[in-house]
Amino acid sequence: MKDTLTQRTINRLTQYHTILRDYKKKNIRFITSNQISSFLKIDETQVRKDLKLINCKGKCKVGYDVIELKDTIETVLDYKTVKRAFVIGAGNLGVALSKYSKFSEFGLDIVALFDTDEAKIGTQINSKPVYHLDKLSELIKQTGVNIAILTIPNKVAQSVCDKITSCGIKYIWNFAPTILSVKDGVEIWNENLIASFLKFCAISKIK
Amino acid sequence: MKDTLTQRTINRLTQYHTILRDYKKKNIRFITSNQISSFLKIDETQVRKDLKLINCKGKCKVGYDVIELKDTIETVLDYKTVKRAFVIGAGNLGVALSKYSKFSEFGLDIVALFDTDEAKIGTQINSKPVYHLDKLSELIKQTGVNIAILTIPNKVAQSVCDKITSCGIKYIWNFAPTILSVKDGVEIWNENLIASFLKFCAISKIK
Repeated sequence: MKDTLTQRTINRLTQYHTILRDYKKKNIRFITSNQISSFLKIDETQVRKDLKLINCKGKCKVGYDVIELKDTIETVLDYKTVKRAFVIGAGNLGVALSKYSKFSEFGLDIVALFDTDEAKIGTQINSKPVYHLDKLSELIKQTGVNIAILTIPNKVAQSVCDKITSCGIKYIWNFAPTILSVKDGVEIWNENLIASFLKFCAISKIK
Repeated sequence: MKDTLTQRTINRLTQYHTILRDYKKKNIRFITSNQISSFLKIDETQVRKDLKLINCKGKCKVGYDVIELKDTIETVLDYKTVKRAFVIGAGNLGVALSKYSKFSEFGLDIVALFDTDEAKIGTQINSKPVYHLDKLSELIKQTGVNIAILTIPNKVAQSVCDKITSCGIKYIWNFAPTILSVKDGVEIWNENLIASFLKFCAISKIK
């Protein structure tokens, strides 16, 4: 199912999930498409279309069952399959991501961090150990983790990228604002924060 | 021009810009659509279509002029208009974003940070002062800044959001993984890192 969803639909479904989580916490049993659309300031028809796509049907005059809808989104987005990852670079961004509570709810489990700064090696961030980058190969063998979240400065990004892929990393979520070249068989996803901001500017007409 | 571009086109243009910046640094004068598409592992036709859209024409057998193309993207995406913003929350993420070098290249100027932790007040992050949140109203009046980058924990997100909009913040780039409700006239953009990761999983078939 996830393969057939567009990127925009995935985006909206995670936002619906955030609202549903809040509703569930407040013990509210039903939610209407109108409530969801008002929160997100999007068209109600869009919400209904998305929920129909994942086979969720609302009850007349009551809305959608909060727990049922939340569960469906979790199944559709495959969040119950745990995806274990290493953070490469225990700087501010690496630490922030390691502390980001919502990742684990969606099945992203940050197992450990890696750095080359001796002052950081051996410490723990949010109960996750920080290892020296030279240990990566060994830890990949021990844990089978093949996803890396890259949060390192631009100037070392390509050389570290080469190193980690030669150790066995297959998937890289790259936060360094540079384009990295990787060998065949390695998938890279560039997190593009500036593009996100520019889209915000375009949509809300920030001048 | 920017108003007519889709979000995906804006995304790609910022990625082309990153490549062009690297080429310019290396004093390479021309780039082909094929080189761009290989870097990003996207279709060459897409690159040519995007560049035609912003009225850039390549020279036969040589490609696009690097400096010219880079300048055009900067103009189209309006990066020369400086957009000044405050970071609310001087934690790891707030500090990481304040140090993120690429923002200023695209016209996003982080002017100052705000927090309530007395230990942080009066310090500087990347030459930007950290003020107490109680000073926000005064600083908005002094500087005219009306954009906030919100990097605070979920549990205080709504109350801080209410506070900053009552002080005069009109645009919020929200990194807290929760949906905030704002009064009319305030625009909010939820940065959705988990959705980004889930899209990566869907596209690269991470299991």
